[in-house]
Amino acid sequence: MVRFLVLYNKTSDIEGFERHYREVHIPLTKKLPGLRRYTLSRQMTPIRGGQPFYLVAELDWDDMDLLKQAFVSPQGKATTSDVANLAQWSPDVRSMIYELEEVR
Amino acid sequence: MVRFLVLYNKTSDIEGFERHYREVHIPLTKKLPGLRRYTLSRQMTPIRGGQPFYLVAELDWDDMDLLKQAFVSPQGKATTSDVANLAQWSPDVRSMIYELEEVR
Repeated sequence: MVRFLVLYNKTSDIEGFERHYREVHIPLTKKLPGLRRYTLSRQMTPIRGGQPFYLVAELDWDDMDLLKQAFVSPQGKATTSDVANLAQWSPDVRSMIYELEEVR
Repeated sequence: MVRFLVLYNKTSDIEGFERHYREVHIPLTKKLPGLRRYTLSRQMTPIRGGQPFYLVAELDWDDMDLLKQAFVSPQGKATTSDVANLAQWSPDVRSMIYELEEVR
């Protein structure tokens, strides 16, 4: 499984961010081909390293090829462009892709 | 589902970090009561926000009560103390706990 992790920092305009996220970004993201799971997390409890993120988005695909196909699709391009809009509210947004390796 | 996310930054002594993580930290973490899933990710592809993390660890429990029980157990205390050891290699380690909200 591969994961696209997006870490949004706190914003001074939570209402504006949430409205755009809910009305524009979620509908775009849900259309990504092959998306297996999409979770959002807020209200995190920080353990180490101070200030937690405001929002963590995790998007999972079965493998890296399917993820890559999703992001070169028209839906993928639209979703990626929209992260630039969200960065107006959360300019330090960080995102990365990685494979999950199960520890057994 | 609740997740404990740990983000380790790049270290100048990867070998020392990896040895401690493999020989000490994984065996401790695997003993945490109720741990449902434990994944590790390295070699991430950064998308936004520059330098990616060196290692992302994700530990899942069925709910917040079970997670809390795990961390007050003797195994939980041992695992938490050992993160302070790992911080020798990765001083900016960040960790946080959150509930996963599925987007459907």
